[in-house]
Amino acid sequence: MDKRSTFIIHMNIAAKPKPFSDNHSWFSATLRSITDSPKFIYSYTNVINGFSAVLSSDELHALRQSPGFLSAYADKQATLDTTHTSQFLSLNHDAGLWPASNYGEDIIIGVIDSGVWPESDSFNDKGMRDIPKKWKGKCESGAGFNSSVCNLKLIGAPYFNKGLMAATNSEISLFGDSATARDSMGHGTHTSSTAAGSEVTGASFHGYGGGIARGAMPRARLAIYKALWDNGRYASDVLAAMDQAITDGVDIISISMGFDGVPLHEDPIAIASFAAMEKGILVSASAGNSGPDLSTMHNGIPWVLTVAAGTVGRKFFATLTLGNGRDFSGGVSLYPAKALLLNVPLVYNKTFSSCNSSETLSAMAEDMIVLCDFTSSIDYQMRSVTQSNAAGAIFINDNLDAAKDFTCPSVIVSAKDGFELLNYVKEHKETATVTVSFQQTLVDVKPAPAVAEYSSRGPSPSFPGVLKPDIMAPGEKIIAAWVPTRSTAKLGRTPLASDFNIMSGTSMATPHVSGVAALLKSVHSEWSPSEIKSAILTTANTLDNTLEPIKELADRVPMVTASALAMGAGQVDPNKAMDPGLVYETGTEEYVSLLCASNYTSKQIMAITRWRSAAALNCSKASKDLNYPSFIAIFDDGDYVQRFVRTVTNVGYEGSVYKVKVVSPGGVDIRVKPETLVFKEKYEKLNYEVQIKRSRKRSEKKYSDGSIIWLDIKGKYKVRSPVVVVV
Amino acid sequence: MDKRSTFIIHMNIAAKPKPFSDNHSWFSATLRSITDSPKFIYSYTNVINGFSAVLSSDELHALRQSPGFLSAYADKQATLDTTHTSQFLSLNHDAGLWPASNYGEDIIIGVIDSGVWPESDSFNDKGMRDIPKKWKGKCESGAGFNSSVCNLKLIGAPYFNKGLMAATNSEISLFGDSATARDSMGHGTHTSSTAAGSEVTGASFHGYGGGIARGAMPRARLAIYKALWDNGRYASDVLAAMDQAITDGVDIISISMGFDGVPLHEDPIAIASFAAMEKGILVSASAGNSGPDLSTMHNGIPWVLTVAAGTVGRKFFATLTLGNGRDFSGGVSLYPAKALLLNVPLVYNKTFSSCNSSETLSAMAEDMIVLCDFTSSIDYQMRSVTQSNAAGAIFINDNLDAAKDFTCPSVIVSAKDGFELLNYVKEHKETATVTVSFQQTLVDVKPAPAVAEYSSRGPSPSFPGVLKPDIMAPGEKIIAAWVPTRSTAKLGRTPLASDFNIMSGTSMATPHVSGVAALLKSVHSEWSPSEIKSAILTTANTLDNTLEPIKELADRVPMVTASALAMGAGQVDPNKAMDPGLVYETGTEEYVSLLCASNYTSKQIMAITRWRSAAALNCSKASKDLNYPSFIAIFDDGDYVQRFVRTVTNVGYEGSVYKVKVVSPGGVDIRVKPETLVFKEKYEKLNYEVQIKRSRKRSEKKYSDGSIIWLDIKGKYKVRSPVVVVV
Repeated sequence: MDKRSTFIIHMNIAAKPKPFSDNHSWFSATLRSITDSPKFIYSYTNVINGFSAVLSSDELHALRQSPGFLSAYADKQATLDTTHTSQFLSLNHDAGLWPASNYGEDIIIGVIDSGVWPESDSFNDKGMRDIPKKWKGKCESGAGFNSSVCNLKLIGAPYFNKGLMAATNSEISLFGDSATARDSMGHGTHTSSTAAGSEVTGASFHGYGGGIARGAMPRARLAIYKALWDNGRYASDVLAAMDQAITDGVDIISISMGFDGVPLHEDPIAIASFAAMEKGILVSASAGNSGPDLSTMHNGIPWVLTVAAGTVGRKFFATLTLGNGRDFSGGVSLYPAKALLLNVPLVYNKTFSSCNSSETLSAMAEDMIVLCDFTSSIDYQMRSVTQSNAAGAIFINDNLDAAKDFTCPSVIVSAKDGFELLNYVKEHKETATVTVSFQQTLVDVKPAPAVAEYSSRGPSPSFPGVLKPDIMAPGEKIIAAWVPTRSTAKLGRTPLASDFNIMSGTSMATPHVSGVAALLKSVHSEWSPSEIKSAILTTANTLDNTLEPIKELADRVPMVTASALAMGAGQVDPNKAMDPGLVYETGTEEYVSLLCASNYTSKQIMAITRWRSAAALNCSKASKDLNYPSFIAIFDDGDYVQRFVRTVTNVGYEGSVYKVKVVSPGGVDIRVKPETLVFKEKYEKLNYEVQIKRSRKRSEKKYSDGSIIWLDIKGKYKVRSPVVVVV
Repeated sequence: MDKRSTFIIHMNIAAKPKPFSDNHSWFSATLRSITDSPKFIYSYTNVINGFSAVLSSDELHALRQSPGFLSAYADKQATLDTTHTSQFLSLNHDAGLWPASNYGEDIIIGVIDSGVWPESDSFNDKGMRDIPKKWKGKCESGAGFNSSVCNLKLIGAPYFNKGLMAATNSEISLFGDSATARDSMGHGTHTSSTAAGSEVTGASFHGYGGGIARGAMPRARLAIYKALWDNGRYASDVLAAMDQAITDGVDIISISMGFDGVPLHEDPIAIASFAAMEKGILVSASAGNSGPDLSTMHNGIPWVLTVAAGTVGRKFFATLTLGNGRDFSGGVSLYPAKALLLNVPLVYNKTFSSCNSSETLSAMAEDMIVLCDFTSSIDYQMRSVTQSNAAGAIFINDNLDAAKDFTCPSVIVSAKDGFELLNYVKEHKETATVTVSFQQTLVDVKPAPAVAEYSSRGPSPSFPGVLKPDIMAPGEKIIAAWVPTRSTAKLGRTPLASDFNIMSGTSMATPHVSGVAALLKSVHSEWSPSEIKSAILTTANTLDNTLEPIKELADRVPMVTASALAMGAGQVDPNKAMDPGLVYETGTEEYVSLLCASNYTSKQIMAITRWRSAAALNCSKASKDLNYPSFIAIFDDGDYVQRFVRTVTNVGYEGSVYKVKVVSPGGVDIRVKPETLVFKEKYEKLNYEVQIKRSRKRSEKKYSDGSIIWLDIKGKYKVRSPVVVVV
């Protein structure tokens, strides 16, 4: 028998023979019919009609001949999207979404991740009331994880490791992980506390960013589904976790990972989130960290809320004060202790200026602070200074974020600051001194937010016809709860633990948006996932804290205005999202029509939608034009005009009147008809048509940005849709 | 001219010629009359009739012939008495002395020390009301110390450096210190915040002893008189500081230092505190850190409240968990970071077991934790492990408090625990591991309090006839505010700053008692210093937290029951002191009678008491028997009976009846007459007589302890006086 591996198999349940009382027994019998040594993994209930199993290629071939077989694909591994915050989103106790939603106490967020460290103070349930009755899930016990660790905040913690065990063929694979939902990685603890961590005072990362830590939705319930393990993150487990989350009754699913380079019909998140969407559960998922190139994202799924990462306008640093009184606060440091470096000799010398020999440094700079040129890698310099007798270092480096760990008392400064420091040392030779004050945090740094360079850009490879990502949220240097078993910093060679860690990535941005979505669900329990998404998109903020358009961070100066392909509609604005004026509704049928119009085979569509038969699949309304709150128009060579029809629902006040304002992207003219929408009633629906006409032909394909904004004439609402065109 | 130095000169002001309008002009003229280059330092107002000046021996000789000259002695340096806590004293917000005194907001404590770091959060004045009208002092400005740093909590901060400058003959002597009350040493910031620091949440020493920091009297006002400098602590400056404190209107003076080996009439604290006592200001002062030998104390002054240091029942440590699951929490550590040492290999090897070679350790124990024998000094071992590549160390040592700094991740364990650890390593060789959890704090350690070994013992060398010390308070490993410019710990070679520091000594015990005295003054504004002292002494606790008599810590097992020569009346009990039932009052006249009976010359008595003339000195009532709330009877060879008469004032309820209970020390019989005291009125005074009769003669002088206790028959009051005899 050739090598076996795990496959995910979709079945057409219309083909199920009558004698089988349930799907599982049919799947199981099917597997037994083609192999003497069946190795069944999961039977799925909600997310697919199908199962996962370990198969040889011969067995897979035999399975393909079985009645009802629809499709199969190999299990695959997810990519983790990890490379400040509620205050930055203007959530506050006095007004807005927090009090309106009672901080989300009736909402359950399901987090599909690496589990949870339940003892973290971020999961305390102080002052919380009974668990909502709809909850059907549980806290699974296991070694070192008694179900009593769950409480009124952390209400569920199951784990899914069968796919992992099948793939790695051994229990040994759990090394570091126990067979429980305990988080050994830190990722799940960080993301879930970001979504809905309880308030913790005195939180900080080794003295940086100190203050109150809390999630976006501090009183929502958390159910944490462990499907990511130290040595494997398998689609079969992720599917099983999402399957269970739907069964358990979560309101929102938050996913900080994705499957790269897969078509929608083989993407477990696309497939499972379709089922979730049908049940009214919004899935928010991370765009990935493969930016800044275009078309680098995952999770660009039409029925998912896809999240980009932005900066937070917060800086962690150390202040340098020279002997002549001059201050420098432009550098960066995360040295994890309150070192006392008071008027320490500051030295520079060509012999040791590359700071790559601890012997030379020890011999020439004992108990002094050395100024290091940008001539070696920062990691190597950091190690050399750490192993030397020098008191510390100032590293000159173009990239202020170059250091992974600040293992010795040190600061990274720009070439410009470095030049000034050098001049000071040269002028004062023997008497130059510096005082370094670590653990400094600066907030409201300008401009912010900006799109993080690494945040994956659209268009979505798996579905370019819908503008993705959808929204941006804080993802850069986020402080959230951490596991005590994984170090967060190093002092010399000593690893340090901390209850909070700083992480960056779209992984960190996503739970912020999941929390906001949950808050909206709490305030507007009647809203569908598409309405929540619409409210978040059309109210997003497109200006930064200098009141200029949000920029993209990149290794180029000056920064460029951010495209919707980088940030979606803009930075999430929770309080505005609560009252959007108009919403764009989209239902299951429309997504099917979209798939029908998009060159998917009926089997592929059935795999995604779990329809009972090809015959039942109604593609009569096939349309590429989804009622989405954003626009993307990609012009082929012969193509001069594209038309879109949208339907908006008035969720503002009766008798509201909106006038359109169009900001045309370069190279096109946009016409909107009608230009005025008059709503007599609340919940009334009105259509409008958008015609995007190419005004000139380009030699080179080029993206450009614009927007269509509906302005309520009373000035209360501004309903904005980003428009991206490629001509 | 021969070498000049500073002298303190007492003058008989009865001799002042009429033309001089004030003392200062007379002192100044006197000095000018004997030298062409007068170098005047201070003229004192309250504490002595006299001045300080820099004199050659010829000049001093000439001065002795001047009219009104009384006495002179060389300036001398003080000894600093520094080598958890309000909770331990049962002070709480619900009942007792804190609420009764409104936390002492109307009381001003004057602290004579090394100044203050006014920016420390412990001196915040949140919620405090206007400064009491009686206050006449000020906050002196200077470089880096604008008087605006004072507030409603820190109401005064003058400095006194003229004696220092005269002695060191230069301004250079202020190096490190500026000519302001800013504390460069940390000592004054620590003691003053211990006495009356405002509440600070989240205080800790690098993660140890975390919680709320506050002084014994958290809302009292602080006036801090800087007289101690980095390079000198001169009697002339201390006298000037106390002089000013009396002028300014403080209620209590707290002094955490003393002058060793000086007679009362040349002891600036004895002299200045006599003046303070006359003005109704109690001085509490530290006994010193020269224990455990007898007769090692300073500040054993009859009119001063003399404070011994006790332990707090709190322990700072790291937990060790072996690979086999066995836990050890008996060790001690103050490693100042949250090192993550999880299942790290634990090794022991004869080659490196002395842990005195970083090369050998690096070669044989890289990234491992080494078990170190007690064969080198701990400082040397700590340095070797710190400089090596080892992950950390477990030091076996008889003295768990041996390490000054924990510069590498390490724990000190006893020989007993070390033996168990050794056996484990030997049995598990290659597989032995240990997990170390730092920053652990254990409270309510038993037994506590115990007398700290270093706390100086009585009898008082300067006045053995009054039982000293008076009282014990927490002095061991006290966490209080600190200066940011002096390091509190070291990580490797990097010094660390901290807003709080751990200090030990009678220096730390004294401000606790000063705070309690201030609280009593607030509740009983009519009480004299002797009544406050009496209330504190007669209500002191003599039992530890195992309800056994308080013990003395010493390098001997088992611990012995503490003598009153070590702890005075016992551990201060603030809430009981508020309502003592009976008090022993003592006034100026009685102290003079005591001095008259004690072989002092009239000039010496005049120097202490500032009486206008020898003729005015009335020694007709000379008596060695002071109306003191404790007893000491030292039997000379021919001596068989000693008699004492005491007067108690009823401050309890009218109609109270007390019966005496006597616990006789070994070697004597004690009779008390009468055995019952019947008070008709409140404030009524009754006498009783004590006869102590030697029952046998010893070959060797020996101290023994007993007590005389007056018990209110209703069971409300217990008025205890310790009795020490030497037969």
